[in-house]
Amino acid sequence: MVEGGRGDIDDLPKNDANYTALTPLWFLERAALIHPQRKSIIHGSLQYTWLQTYQRCRRLASALAKHSVGLGKTVAVIAPNIPAIYEAHFGVPMAGAVVNCVNIRLNAPTIAFLLGHSLASVVMVDQEFFSLAEEALKILASDVKGTFKPPLLIVIGDENCDPGQLRDALDKGAIDYEKFLESGDPEYAWKPPKDEWQSIALGYTSGTTSNPKGVVLSHRGAYVMSLSGALIWGMTEGAVYLWTLPMFHCNGWCYTWTLAALCGTSVCLRQVSAKAVYSAIANEGVTHFCAAPIVLNTIASAPKDQTILPLPRQVNVMTAGAAPPPPVLSAMSKHGTYGLSETYGPSTVCAWKPEWDSLPLEDQARLNARQGVRYIGLEGLDVFDTEKQTPVPADGVTMGEIVTRGNSVMKGYLKNPEANKEAFANGWFHSGDLAVKHPDGYIEIKDRAKDIIISGGENISSLEVESFLYQHPAVFETSVVARPDEKWGESPCAFVTLKPGMEGSNEKDVAQDIMKFCRAKMPAFWVPKSVVFGPLPKTATGKIQKHVLRAKAKEMGPVKRSRL
Amino acid sequence: MVEGGRGDIDDLPKNDANYTALTPLWFLERAALIHPQRKSIIHGSLQYTWLQTYQRCRRLASALAKHSVGLGKTVAVIAPNIPAIYEAHFGVPMAGAVVNCVNIRLNAPTIAFLLGHSLASVVMVDQEFFSLAEEALKILASDVKGTFKPPLLIVIGDENCDPGQLRDALDKGAIDYEKFLESGDPEYAWKPPKDEWQSIALGYTSGTTSNPKGVVLSHRGAYVMSLSGALIWGMTEGAVYLWTLPMFHCNGWCYTWTLAALCGTSVCLRQVSAKAVYSAIANEGVTHFCAAPIVLNTIASAPKDQTILPLPRQVNVMTAGAAPPPPVLSAMSKHGTYGLSETYGPSTVCAWKPEWDSLPLEDQARLNARQGVRYIGLEGLDVFDTEKQTPVPADGVTMGEIVTRGNSVMKGYLKNPEANKEAFANGWFHSGDLAVKHPDGYIEIKDRAKDIIISGGENISSLEVESFLYQHPAVFETSVVARPDEKWGESPCAFVTLKPGMEGSNEKDVAQDIMKFCRAKMPAFWVPKSVVFGPLPKTATGKIQKHVLRAKAKEMGPVKRSRL
Repeated sequence: MVEGGRGDIDDLPKNDANYTALTPLWFLERAALIHPQRKSIIHGSLQYTWLQTYQRCRRLASALAKHSVGLGKTVAVIAPNIPAIYEAHFGVPMAGAVVNCVNIRLNAPTIAFLLGHSLASVVMVDQEFFSLAEEALKILASDVKGTFKPPLLIVIGDENCDPGQLRDALDKGAIDYEKFLESGDPEYAWKPPKDEWQSIALGYTSGTTSNPKGVVLSHRGAYVMSLSGALIWGMTEGAVYLWTLPMFHCNGWCYTWTLAALCGTSVCLRQVSAKAVYSAIANEGVTHFCAAPIVLNTIASAPKDQTILPLPRQVNVMTAGAAPPPPVLSAMSKHGTYGLSETYGPSTVCAWKPEWDSLPLEDQARLNARQGVRYIGLEGLDVFDTEKQTPVPADGVTMGEIVTRGNSVMKGYLKNPEANKEAFANGWFHSGDLAVKHPDGYIEIKDRAKDIIISGGENISSLEVESFLYQHPAVFETSVVARPDEKWGESPCAFVTLKPGMEGSNEKDVAQDIMKFCRAKMPAFWVPKSVVFGPLPKTATGKIQKHVLRAKAKEMGPVKRSRL
Repeated sequence: MVEGGRGDIDDLPKNDANYTALTPLWFLERAALIHPQRKSIIHGSLQYTWLQTYQRCRRLASALAKHSVGLGKTVAVIAPNIPAIYEAHFGVPMAGAVVNCVNIRLNAPTIAFLLGHSLASVVMVDQEFFSLAEEALKILASDVKGTFKPPLLIVIGDENCDPGQLRDALDKGAIDYEKFLESGDPEYAWKPPKDEWQSIALGYTSGTTSNPKGVVLSHRGAYVMSLSGALIWGMTEGAVYLWTLPMFHCNGWCYTWTLAALCGTSVCLRQVSAKAVYSAIANEGVTHFCAAPIVLNTIASAPKDQTILPLPRQVNVMTAGAAPPPPVLSAMSKHGTYGLSETYGPSTVCAWKPEWDSLPLEDQARLNARQGVRYIGLEGLDVFDTEKQTPVPADGVTMGEIVTRGNSVMKGYLKNPEANKEAFANGWFHSGDLAVKHPDGYIEIKDRAKDIIISGGENISSLEVESFLYQHPAVFETSVVARPDEKWGESPCAFVTLKPGMEGSNEKDVAQDIMKFCRAKMPAFWVPKSVVFGPLPKTATGKIQKHVLRAKAKEMGPVKRSRL
């Protein structure tokens, strides 16, 4: 009898024939069965078939199991987009353990924190990052002292790297990844989890101001998100996906698992460059890739000798962010998304409406730059008044916090009841992002809660000011924060990096020009009252550190009226 | 803590923010939110948008709730492919009840049995079938006498039908469907089921020899199957689907729900005709339809004046059965499937492999005529030795029973513990269909267990003999069964309907020609030793009644050697 069920019609229990855990692991078994000879992974000259990938993942699971790495254990992976990190997405949960892909741009102390916090039983590290891992483990050992049980250290070699690095690591006692696989059984009888709520992955948020938080995901959620990700994007059987998005970002937004469901092909890139992207598109049949706006910019602004144009086919691009597609990308069909680690990656998509087809391009761009509507796997999306915790009106003006609920929301933060309480208040996940809801139900992000500038009692979205600044021909990158202001309390302060070739310009002239440009486009109180040039401080993951800029703006002291 | 889980990493409970029932009802809410103005249903000149469909479904749920039709209750729908049967797929489960779509080709006593067996609280009936429903209810009332509580009787009008029918029904006290909707709240606050294992639909198998069995499906299974059906077929957002497949067949194989997930459009057909199909393809933008082989034949052999050719676009056809596509259908990309009511519709698909592209057409046809590999939502598919209950070798020769397991297997048969025990023996669902497993893992159906002919100790698949017979130019339809045989115990007996225009032929000559044709193509013992001409007996659902033919063949007495 089901919960709440009544009568004969619900009196039919689950059994082994009609119920099993939802887990993306099934996709891998199926891909190997249906397309054993199809390419699963291409990494330069190294290529695997789905049968090989399945066997390698079973070997990995088997080898981990032999080391008692199973239920409740965590395996950390520190690697760029290479086959081993893909394999870990299946091999680790096949053993019952949880995969934790670590951002390779983090520094050793932060990695030490993550490994200690997650009690990693195993660390799989790409040879290039071996010394980083070594350093992190040293810090961890000295932090925890006597109680420290060093994790199993496995080094992953890569033909494209210096063979000396690998030798060094092996000399220092690390286990060779390929040898480790050899010790496992390619026919390992993996089992789905007993309970699909079991954890499959752990990923740490980058946390610009506090300790990283460990986002825990379930087998069930990963299953739902994998299918949803394909459907939302119109990705079909046999898709060829280019990995510019790091797999350590929300498990490559779950496309790691989607590709197995679609029996598709992963094209790995150790390092993203315009040349490598164009070459993969031209030579490997790439149909889809996800890219941050900065990657799209790199592709778009690449010198001619690094491009291969025209593109040989329609390439579908999914991007998190609202940068308008440069002309060179017009052959790429762009999907905008918004999401967080806490929502398995994207939770909204700006679904295109046929009725927009006939609108002026400008209106199309404006509508399409919004974050949009909820994913299939997400059952609730709204914008809540931050005090009343009720939906804001769908007027395109009233700001509130984006909240989500449903099967593609994380299980919670690891060992962080305080943060969980706050994040899940009132049965909704609170994103901390501020948005408006348009009359058509599409949401549009206005800012991170703490990135709002309050000037003369009016809210200014630093994000909106930034988006105008990006339209100025000299601006390459910009970030706008609040600076104390004698008269208004706060006013916008723009930090700007100039476009390549413009570095020698007279900064004062450019600043004047930028302000003039802004005055023509936005309310006077939005116009940055200060413009500062130079490189922008970033986190290891490439996020601009607004808190550093806020501190800098504060240091500059209040804007004085005479300066205007 | 999850079942089997250990430690902090699994100690994160479900809450309202990160867990909700998987149910296709979410798809409808989402479609109405994202594409309120997009066409949801086209039924001749009657058209609805997704917002309207959502409101109509909420009205239906609300009106049902007002009549205390909720958890544990069943609503029967007796209708062809019209908007109301689509709406029932959402409105009924939104009220917590179970939708039971009844095959309109059944006779009154059978429908009486179904309504009594499922204890239908409501009967929604299309005006054309009102007298059928009336008769069934009369039989039911006289069967159960004093204890009979007549269901709420709702009649669905259709502008395309005789208005007198509707008036008659209303005069007899039936409730008008549109009036019923009006009594409901278009903003009804429906809730997902507390438990996704709750039943969403009930469908009766046609049961040629015994009482129909009621197949019960869950919200969870319907969710998984809806997404799987889209992914398997490469159906993407905004697909336009033509309803030739009746929605009362396995809930239109769950495409009812898939279309909401894709915010697609349903084009209804009250009656399937070549003209209507071509017209829908030409005028409504149809991208996909499912069709039984007989429907494909009708389309293919339509007189020129009923066709609109060439097709304006690629149309994707999903068909259950192995008929080779006639040349006129070459513009339709065909997917072959195999499935049962017990597996929410299709459970296998003959996934095309790129390596087949270069094979001779004949080999392509042979490979593609197989039933293939498992669906994404099905986690187990195998062929078991019927005695040992272990997998047969993948040799393409050894026959066994097709077994399946996973989330797209039914909850069970309603009030039928005996049948459930048999169907779910050993933790697998037993299909009763016989197949071989090829070296590439693809399965191929050989026969229903009881349709095997045993001749001189050798098994003959009546299906295989039939497939050869279909290649003979005079054969329109055929069914092959065992006939007692003096010498061999049994031998194949072919019942044949001739192609239109051939009815006047000399039957003896044609029979000789068919046998000669067979001798050139198949082992001698496979060749039908008797050929009988005439129309074939069929069930209400159009299935050939082999048991009738078997009885007829038996009556004919044993084949005598002198006849050969």
